[in-house]
Amino acid sequence: MSEYSARDVEAVSVGLVRKHFYLFAENPEEALVLESGVKIGPVTVAYETYGELAPGRDNAVLVLHALSGDCHVAAGYHDQTDTIPGWWENMVGPGKGIDTDRYFVICASILGSCGGTTGPGATNPATGKPYGLDFPVVTVGDMVMTQQRLLTHLGITRLLAVIGGSLGGMQALEWSLRYPDQVAGVVALATTMRHSPLAIAFNEIARQAIMADPNWRQGHYYDGPKPATGLAVARMIGHVTYLSDEALRRKFGRRLQGKDKFSFQFNGDFQVESYLRHQGTKFVARFDANSFLYVTKAADYFDLEHWGGKGSAVEAFAAAQALFLVVSFTSDWLYPTYQSRELIRALKKNGRDVSFCELKADCGHDAFLLPNRRLSRLIANFLERIQRESQI
Amino acid sequence: MSEYSARDVEAVSVGLVRKHFYLFAENPEEALVLESGVKIGPVTVAYETYGELAPGRDNAVLVLHALSGDCHVAAGYHDQTDTIPGWWENMVGPGKGIDTDRYFVICASILGSCGGTTGPGATNPATGKPYGLDFPVVTVGDMVMTQQRLLTHLGITRLLAVIGGSLGGMQALEWSLRYPDQVAGVVALATTMRHSPLAIAFNEIARQAIMADPNWRQGHYYDGPKPATGLAVARMIGHVTYLSDEALRRKFGRRLQGKDKFSFQFNGDFQVESYLRHQGTKFVARFDANSFLYVTKAADYFDLEHWGGKGSAVEAFAAAQALFLVVSFTSDWLYPTYQSRELIRALKKNGRDVSFCELKADCGHDAFLLPNRRLSRLIANFLERIQRESQI
Repeated sequence: MSEYSARDVEAVSVGLVRKHFYLFAENPEEALVLESGVKIGPVTVAYETYGELAPGRDNAVLVLHALSGDCHVAAGYHDQTDTIPGWWENMVGPGKGIDTDRYFVICASILGSCGGTTGPGATNPATGKPYGLDFPVVTVGDMVMTQQRLLTHLGITRLLAVIGGSLGGMQALEWSLRYPDQVAGVVALATTMRHSPLAIAFNEIARQAIMADPNWRQGHYYDGPKPATGLAVARMIGHVTYLSDEALRRKFGRRLQGKDKFSFQFNGDFQVESYLRHQGTKFVARFDANSFLYVTKAADYFDLEHWGGKGSAVEAFAAAQALFLVVSFTSDWLYPTYQSRELIRALKKNGRDVSFCELKADCGHDAFLLPNRRLSRLIANFLERIQRESQI
Repeated sequence: MSEYSARDVEAVSVGLVRKHFYLFAENPEEALVLESGVKIGPVTVAYETYGELAPGRDNAVLVLHALSGDCHVAAGYHDQTDTIPGWWENMVGPGKGIDTDRYFVICASILGSCGGTTGPGATNPATGKPYGLDFPVVTVGDMVMTQQRLLTHLGITRLLAVIGGSLGGMQALEWSLRYPDQVAGVVALATTMRHSPLAIAFNEIARQAIMADPNWRQGHYYDGPKPATGLAVARMIGHVTYLSDEALRRKFGRRLQGKDKFSFQFNGDFQVESYLRHQGTKFVARFDANSFLYVTKAADYFDLEHWGGKGSAVEAFAAAQALFLVVSFTSDWLYPTYQSRELIRALKKNGRDVSFCELKADCGHDAFLLPNRRLSRLIANFLERIQRESQI
């Protein structure tokens, strides 16, 4: 048990796994102090675990999810109402890249999102109503802090590895600086150590699309219709940045939807248009518009060059102690390879042990989520090596 | 005068130039038959001319504007209410790349847009009210057809050159196939011969943003508030695709707006965010949301591989007779260089005389609009060469 007056309040069996809810900071004196200085409590963290914790507690792997994910990383559909299985089925499971026969895998929904962990849709104790935009803006550091509280609660003082892609990769890097002695290995995929102005630009436009929806009502829409059209547009913007020119040409080309002639109307002639509309609609059914605002804002704020008030990435990463595996993908134009190289440089200048691989992939940023034998093997080998070499 | 019952209905002096309005197809029998098969009339074409038509009528250059442009290509601000000068001031004027001391330059606002030429904001003769979405969907070919009618009216049977970038470049290429004996030279900048699924995707998301605005009202908003927020989001989406990762890093980096700390609010912390919002707001003041729908749709439909029912670009460009100058820009990820190379291949396989240049530029697709000495010189030399070599 943890040092806080915290507890697992609930655990529901969902398919093959149990989804747990860890509650802490119920007492105002134990409130979580965010990077903004704002205090928040109580905080619930939804999480799932896969595999068994070894008696020596030395086989724990924390998987960190990206923008649209949640704690349900694998083990198929939760139940018949689920529209998607775990978000990383191809990587996490028995005999897979992150082998749940060997490792105890933990994944927690991030702070500010809508996967069961406290976010703008949670009840604001001050009003008894959903927070909406009264929820404080959180950072990647704040997300990591809640994860660390959960691990303390679970009695895990040192992780074999933290692993994530995209926003999950940002969390992995943040872990390596914030809790350097609690992480033996870091796997950072398709990510960056500082969010670029291009990435900020797309996020800001997506947020504008949500806030332009009259149903958004300054974030207080939980008792009425949702800002569904705004969120759908936001998702489409995000989604297209995860793809690539090549992938879209291969997957859709200029093929028309159903018929072989232009409609000369605005209903969407091309398959790529219907695909995007479908992605927008599907997302609206499972994601909260305010959470989209908070999670993208956290990504935009992410900048390890200024971590802990440092003036350069080299200075910031002086704190890191872990072994690193960094992977980028050739067609990822959201977090291009040169950004991974900047990270490598900062790590190497600090004498860190870093493995780096740029994988050839034509499917854009999303490549880290797709089945890829080479990626699975890279991660499996890296985990074996940490177990062998590190003093966990 | 033309063969049609058409006329210059109005000409207003605007700053240094006169803006003309050419009206045709007033008589239903003379209606313009669009590619969709729909007939439309009357049609007004707003245009401006610069320089003098030579007695031999052999120095006419048609400049073709892109999505957000209009017929006002140069000669500064129209009047004190203008927010922007001509859209290609750095290229068109006395002694410039397109030298108005030597050439008679014509630029006409495109069909479907809102620069004075008939579009969805024009009066529908059937109802006496603005067309809105009852305006027929038009193609790049339809735009070119109205331009050709204007030239007939002006007594110009053969152009020294057609010149355009982006959607303007598409029109230039269309001219070379639709009226091959009326064009001596074609300058196609930062363009493509078939709109890619990535480009379609961004256009479709932008259109969705407009149509999601409740003020849009299925396009019939001319008697009420405009769909300003939707159009602003659409413009921001478009605008970011015209820039590049490098340009944004150089211009804005992660610099904050005004203060040196994060606001922990959703008002926009970064300069790049304020810049985009400003671009959105500025655009709303001068552009019609429905026109945005029509013009982007025309770009999406653009595909010269299927021009005239042909099955390949090589077959399609067998019709071309002009000399070509094709220019792409290294950081243009909307119409990347490989797309220009595909065009070159189709032209060369038909034995066409093609000059091609990929210019190094870090500012993305917008590079063709920015001052660039090398581009000016390339165009100037090309025009001189056509005058010298072609039989105009």
